[in-house]
Amino acid sequence: MLDQLTICAIATSPGMGAIATIRLSGEKALEIADSVFQSPKSGKKLAEQQPNTLHFGSIADGNELIDEVVVSIFRAPHSFTGEDVVEITCHGSVYIQQRILQLLIAKDARMALPGEFTQRAFLNGKMDLSQAEAVADLIASTNRAAQKVAINQMRGGFSSELTNLRGELLHFIAMIELELDFSEEDVEFADRDQLKKLVSKIESILRKLKDSFQLGNVIKNGIPVAIIGETNVGKSTLLNALLNEEKAIVSDIHGTTRDVIEDVVNIHGTAFRFFDTAGIRETTDQIETLGIERSYSKFDLATVVILVIDTLNDFNTVSERITKIRKRIKDQHLIIAANKSDIGRAETIEKLRKLSLKANEKLVFIAAKQRTNLDELISEMQHAVSLDSISEDAVIVTNVRHFEALSKALESIERVQLGLDNLISGDFLAQDIRECLHFLGEITGEISNDEILGHIFKNFCIGK
Amino acid sequence: MLDQLTICAIATSPGMGAIATIRLSGEKALEIADSVFQSPKSGKKLAEQQPNTLHFGSIADGNELIDEVVVSIFRAPHSFTGEDVVEITCHGSVYIQQRILQLLIAKDARMALPGEFTQRAFLNGKMDLSQAEAVADLIASTNRAAQKVAINQMRGGFSSELTNLRGELLHFIAMIELELDFSEEDVEFADRDQLKKLVSKIESILRKLKDSFQLGNVIKNGIPVAIIGETNVGKSTLLNALLNEEKAIVSDIHGTTRDVIEDVVNIHGTAFRFFDTAGIRETTDQIETLGIERSYSKFDLATVVILVIDTLNDFNTVSERITKIRKRIKDQHLIIAANKSDIGRAETIEKLRKLSLKANEKLVFIAAKQRTNLDELISEMQHAVSLDSISEDAVIVTNVRHFEALSKALESIERVQLGLDNLISGDFLAQDIRECLHFLGEITGEISNDEILGHIFKNFCIGK
Repeated sequence: MLDQLTICAIATSPGMGAIATIRLSGEKALEIADSVFQSPKSGKKLAEQQPNTLHFGSIADGNELIDEVVVSIFRAPHSFTGEDVVEITCHGSVYIQQRILQLLIAKDARMALPGEFTQRAFLNGKMDLSQAEAVADLIASTNRAAQKVAINQMRGGFSSELTNLRGELLHFIAMIELELDFSEEDVEFADRDQLKKLVSKIESILRKLKDSFQLGNVIKNGIPVAIIGETNVGKSTLLNALLNEEKAIVSDIHGTTRDVIEDVVNIHGTAFRFFDTAGIRETTDQIETLGIERSYSKFDLATVVILVIDTLNDFNTVSERITKIRKRIKDQHLIIAANKSDIGRAETIEKLRKLSLKANEKLVFIAAKQRTNLDELISEMQHAVSLDSISEDAVIVTNVRHFEALSKALESIERVQLGLDNLISGDFLAQDIRECLHFLGEITGEISNDEILGHIFKNFCIGK
Repeated sequence: MLDQLTICAIATSPGMGAIATIRLSGEKALEIADSVFQSPKSGKKLAEQQPNTLHFGSIADGNELIDEVVVSIFRAPHSFTGEDVVEITCHGSVYIQQRILQLLIAKDARMALPGEFTQRAFLNGKMDLSQAEAVADLIASTNRAAQKVAINQMRGGFSSELTNLRGELLHFIAMIELELDFSEEDVEFADRDQLKKLVSKIESILRKLKDSFQLGNVIKNGIPVAIIGETNVGKSTLLNALLNEEKAIVSDIHGTTRDVIEDVVNIHGTAFRFFDTAGIRETTDQIETLGIERSYSKFDLATVVILVIDTLNDFNTVSERITKIRKRIKDQHLIIAANKSDIGRAETIEKLRKLSLKANEKLVFIAAKQRTNLDELISEMQHAVSLDSISEDAVIVTNVRHFEALSKALESIERVQLGLDNLISGDFLAQDIRECLHFLGEITGEISNDEILGHIFKNFCIGK
């Protein structure tokens, strides 16, 4: 277990800003702050001040003035961590931030570990583990859907779903145990049909949660999009137009295979993850043909496939291409982007308009170079995974750890179902249910150990 | 003049952090904050709360929850800007920061211009112009000396020096005017010797301030260091050892000439600006010889010249080199770094030890590759411009604008001196003194116009 020392860290983004905040938490937070802070007005110690108040003053290292600051005071248990918390807001010079931090450490505070403030909030019962994890997700959120899901989880939406589930499981155990108590009398209090119904209900809740992870993953990491098409149809023009649509490229992610580079970009508030963008960008006319077969292999990873076709070609050529792709499509959304529609063959365009489309297919006429109709294309991309329609209180699993625990809980429940079908005895059923409860307890942190906690919080940023 | 709308900006460093702060200032700050903020506990409006208090709650855009936040309230005139100020501290997701900012703008706040918060503080009489400028210097400070000078200026150290100067100038004018009033009576109230003494005192204060700019510039931009020497003596090894001494390279600055690259690095709390580091780094044995003549041309820009010599050479070679450099040195500090001293010729080292040094010269035996004695070298570099000895309340001019105003003020005073010597009439003297007061007023902002203000604050960061 970690020690109980007072911890400190810079809580705002690293680097120079107008202001920066350094956070102190622990029993000695006020004492340590008082040892370096002076209020010019009241001369009062911070420890004598009311909680939830702000105090202007100066931070000095002995006689050496470091900065003029504003200090916020929060008192246990009414703080983020549940401990006494002092936040020092100074001028945002990197040098000053470091000086104040070093001064606090010299005065007996310890540098906080990544996520240690949130970990203390968890350990002090201010939030459960899934809520603590949502804090990190919220901070990392780069789009509306991710923020929506994270804040719902942080506010306990997921936790209360798990509490409901827990209630159902305990109800089941209670019925089973009642039966066990009276087993000699051969009375079936828990009638098997009733039990089966209850287990089936639990199973369906668990499955719903587990299945939500696919969407959760898309929300957290962006909608995976593959852009494919023949040489010279305008793939790279389209990609660049889309990537420049909003300048906020979030990151370059190296994909699971070495040669796949992904660009994640927020377009109109939705994160899209474009596959193999390096491949598309780098191709020249001569070598692009090599890329097309390779790009087929990305199909399985994509949620949305954009097939770019060239309306300058005759309809037969275009049609063959579409047929070929349709055969390869499984459950992805296919958007046919009919490019160069401003200068395309009238006949090809006319016939494309009459093309009958399946439920998972859309056709959009664009001119990538002129950026014509890109908005329609984007709106179809968004529509494919309509993240906007996620309700405020939707419970969606976005965390791999939760997904794994839910999968194990689901396996336990499936064993219970099998057991009921095979008329196995109540105590075996109860054992599987307890296992199920155990896995759910891992999510909220009722069941936890240092290793799990260490693993979770090490991915937090320092200062949170 | 700028409008009086309520302004908002992200005040913490851009990018993701644990938390971030968005600042609102103006008449409608509380009203606008109340339109998006809800306190779960009190349900009270922020406008009804006491100043200098903290309030937990949530920010929502209509029904859409954006984040849980802590809000700080400051009331005019007791705030940084002198206006009502609300600071919203949210989770440090870039998305959330932007959403809240956009929401405030939708609610009728205006995005703040660079430095507009500080500009309002100035316009509302919370600080004079030189103090406002010190805020930017403080934020940009990367070392102890720069921070020390900036915070002293921000707290009014420079301003009070100027007030003293103003007092002397007004005293002078009073004496002159007394004389003018009684001019018909041919009474010399202001005896010329007394006037000369007073002007000489004013001149010496102004000159001291003006001269401090040389040090101020070093403090603000780092001590300029040139490393020179023959091929293969270990210049680039030494440079790299010094640059790696502390990993915190502040920036690459493109120098005044196109081919000069400067590395600014904080070593043990002092900022050094190394000239032409690219030149040193890039040179290979064959082309390095070209560089040596070029590096002489940096002499004039440097405060410290480090001459690297190779103790593997015989003493005559080394001695010739030193003599050659000594001829080129003007008022720079010369540090002779006798390199490879771990494997050097005993005779060369012995004779170097006996070398007589001038006041501005030091000799340090080093082994750059082994990093031997680098601390001694660094300490000599620091000693050359001993920034550590700058007292807490030293008034040092670091700002070009102030330097220029002081130079003009000094010219006026010199004209007064000349006038006194040439017995010109009192009203002409008074005119020059008023001109001097005018230039000093430009520093503190008593004399200012939109153009000057615009020029000053456009270099601030947004949010300050």
